[in-house]
Amino acid sequence: MITINCDMGEAFGIYNFGDDSACMPFVTHANVACGFHASDPVTMQRTVREAKAAGINVGSHPGLPDREGFGRRRMQMTREEVSALIVYQTGALQAFVRAEGLELSHIKPHGALFGMAQNEMHVAEGVADAAEIFNLPVIAYSDCCMSEVFTRRGVPFSCEFYSDLDYGDDGRQIISREHKAIPADVVCERVLRAVKEGVTTSVNGKDVPVVADSICVHSDTPGALEVARAVYETLKREGVLEDT
Amino acid sequence: MITINCDMGEAFGIYNFGDDSACMPFVTHANVACGFHASDPVTMQRTVREAKAAGINVGSHPGLPDREGFGRRRMQMTREEVSALIVYQTGALQAFVRAEGLELSHIKPHGALFGMAQNEMHVAEGVADAAEIFNLPVIAYSDCCMSEVFTRRGVPFSCEFYSDLDYGDDGRQIISREHKAIPADVVCERVLRAVKEGVTTSVNGKDVPVVADSICVHSDTPGALEVARAVYETLKREGVLEDT
Amino acid sequence: MITINCDMGEAFGIYNFGDDSACMPFVTHANVACGFHASDPVTMQRTVREAKAAGINVGSHPGLPDREGFGRRRMQMTREEVSALIVYQTGALQAFVRAEGLELSHIKPHGALFGMAQNEMHVAEGVADAAEIFNLPVIAYSDCCMSEVFTRRGVPFSCEFYSDLDYGDDGRQIISREHKAIPADVVCERVLRAVKEGVTTSVNGKDVPVVADSICVHSDTPGALEVARAVYETLKREGVLEDT
Amino acid sequence: MITINCDMGEAFGIYNFGDDSACMPFVTHANVACGFHASDPVTMQRTVREAKAAGINVGSHPGLPDREGFGRRRMQMTREEVSALIVYQTGALQAFVRAEGLELSHIKPHGALFGMAQNEMHVAEGVADAAEIFNLPVIAYSDCCMSEVFTRRGVPFSCEFYSDLDYGDDGRQIISREHKAIPADVVCERVLRAVKEGVTTSVNGKDVPVVADSICVHSDTPGALEVARAVYETLKREGVLEDT
Repeated sequence: MITINCDMGEAFGIYNFGDDSACMPFVTHANVACGFHASDPVTMQRTVREAKAAGINVGSHPGLPDREGFGRRRMQMTREEVSALIVYQTGALQAFVRAEGLELSHIKPHGALFGMAQNEMHVAEGVADAAEIFNLPVIAYSDCCMSEVFTRRGVPFSCEFYSDLDYGDDGRQIISREHKAIPADVVCERVLRAVKEGVTTSVNGKDVPVVADSICVHSDTPGALEVARAVYETLKREGVLEDT
Repeated sequence: MITINCDMGEAFGIYNFGDDSACMPFVTHANVACGFHASDPVTMQRTVREAKAAGINVGSHPGLPDREGFGRRRMQMTREEVSALIVYQTGALQAFVRAEGLELSHIKPHGALFGMAQNEMHVAEGVADAAEIFNLPVIAYSDCCMSEVFTRRGVPFSCEFYSDLDYGDDGRQIISREHKAIPADVVCERVLRAVKEGVTTSVNGKDVPVVADSICVHSDTPGALEVARAVYETLKREGVLEDT
Repeated sequence: MITINCDMGEAFGIYNFGDDSACMPFVTHANVACGFHASDPVTMQRTVREAKAAGINVGSHPGLPDREGFGRRRMQMTREEVSALIVYQTGALQAFVRAEGLELSHIKPHGALFGMAQNEMHVAEGVADAAEIFNLPVIAYSDCCMSEVFTRRGVPFSCEFYSDLDYGDDGRQIISREHKAIPADVVCERVLRAVKEGVTTSVNGKDVPVVADSICVHSDTPGALEVARAVYETLKREGVLEDT
Repeated sequence: MITINCDMGEAFGIYNFGDDSACMPFVTHANVACGFHASDPVTMQRTVREAKAAGINVGSHPGLPDREGFGRRRMQMTREEVSALIVYQTGALQAFVRAEGLELSHIKPHGALFGMAQNEMHVAEGVADAAEIFNLPVIAYSDCCMSEVFTRRGVPFSCEFYSDLDYGDDGRQIISREHKAIPADVVCERVLRAVKEGVTTSVNGKDVPVVADSICVHSDTPGALEVARAVYETLKREGVLEDT
């Protein structure tokens, strides 16, 4: 069965970001920001409560210590630093989650940290170190350092397909600092193809293999809500959406 | 029985602070900084491991979000903000503590947050909100908002005596941004008087009542190590020191 | 003649805030955030360029080192700290302003720093210390520590009237963390009364004296643009608006 | 003539770092940290005043926005971001320098930002953009992106030789997060060889060409003071040290 995950709780102080509560009905797993690339303690508490009310799973979404760059600028990090920053952020979120009588469902590295974990073996090892401490599965990616390390070490993980990002010929999502809008029907077509055939079309028109255990939708792109709803209804209609 | 607590893990990145490992043998409870007023994830992990090796208790030492002021500048905070910042920091530390197979022993608010919780009822309530979530006792203070709120709400707490700070006529410690050195024998005399008689001498020479369930020593004052050792040996000799 | 000032450049990283460029035509002086309570270097550069294109004056809007609280939480600061943080932030902005061939026009302390400078003498002295270094006038307030200190020390200043904030019986604006909307016609009526009669009505219906050398409009309140436009057109029509 | 530059003002809040005032007599140019990788407004003001008292030149030492990593972790930055962060930090320092009646003498990128400017053309362009705004020379490096860009654009620069860092076979210094101690006589031998012969020995024993217009000494390495003094006296004795 397929899950739908969405980055949530990325507001900060006075700044709003995305429309979490509107998106929650169309999502099975919320990746909640933990105060490094975005969010703050009060926002985390509020987001966890909203997710509880919506009845969806809550995972941690730890990011790089770069609020100004929203965690989207790669940074040089040691394995020890990667592990410690994920333990710190996930532990902080876990406290808010347990205060509501829930348990964390997963860990998903955010932004450039996700990209680093795809491409740098020591970063993937650091993610695994943290995941083992919490005994939590990771939302990760196929055919990369993460999948290799997690498979070898027995860290459970699911592979994610980005419904609204472009893909390169290497089968990797293209992360930009600001996301652009993609029509909902195009997104759903992509998602179905990824789920059923395990392929997507790269920016250069090439078919590239992808593993789509979980579909990532965003709450901060223009038209995000319609996209999330369309993906949700499509997967539901096809009978492949995991229950929450 | 009396405990000895000491603020630890207040290094940050490249910056050293205090000599934690040298002080640990003379302490029963380490108050470990949690990344707001001081510390960082890697420092927290290292400090927890050092405390484990020394066989002492580890509590959280959450501070104000003011690294530049080391959490020693009062800030205007709502009850909700106070609670959330303590939950966040304590949760983060708890993850490092549990990763080592230990459990947190207590919460002690740091610096100006401690002072605010003594003097502002809504701050004391926020501390209690967080303590209840973790079901942990608080190292607090007698005859102040904290003791009033904690007693009313049934939050367990111990009262702390600052071995190396001056006291005002109101029986409150005088917090300065940088601590000065006090000779070890003077400190021990103060501690014994506080423990046995429940009084100390204010800066104006007045006897003021204090409750000394736990003695606070510092690791960052000049001569800190000798003071900690002297307090430890004095309480041990008197047969009133709690075992770790 | 009366000026209209508006806080600008309060975006941060990926987060937007207010609609600066839409408001600029209705403003004579932009108070540009300097990277502490809000903004970042790239945002500052962009805001200065937009202000240059709009042909309006640019002043610094230094805030407390509290991004999470948007500089709206009072902090305990020494005179030396206040002075240094204003020099730092104003110097940073000055570099962007001079890079565009302009000069800074003024300094206006932001949020809680403004409030502290109204109420705490040593904070007002710190603001004056910084203003003297840059030889710049301050947008300040009447009948408070700032007006007293600036008058004594000969620091030029103008007094500001908040078009869209409520006033207490003490003639002071009531700062909330989030501003609420006030209808444009109500705002204009208040402004005209303040400018012509030197009074405003407090939240309790009492007439309190105010000095309205400069009208402060906001860009982040709901309906901000219409309010700014209405105030601008009203002052223009009355022939009392300073040219830019 | 040869200059001696040293990173200064890298304390932060309560944390000390290096012994600036002891080192200043043996240095011609202080590279003063600007609040991103290290320092804070009060520390900057104090450092500028100490440098003025010592009669040495003050330049800006802008770093990456990574206080936890002390600006020693490479980050992915656009040219616009690089330029803006240098303008911001240099402008802030310039205000403190001018408040003392002095003028800035130079800009030297710090840590990983320096390394990025050696290796990434768009970062070197961003440094040049900022240097042109202030019309200041840069302390840079030979045979790298900076020397290429600065030469093409006519940005004045001097090339630096690190007296206490190891060199790779590519003639580049090897930056570690924490510096190790090197005996003063070894350092002086290296410096003289670099100055007179334009070569140094790499970690693999290979002679590599270097340009030594300015010798960089550190204040935070063990034995830093003796090294600085020895380099100063050596260059003085050889008659090649620039007057301050």
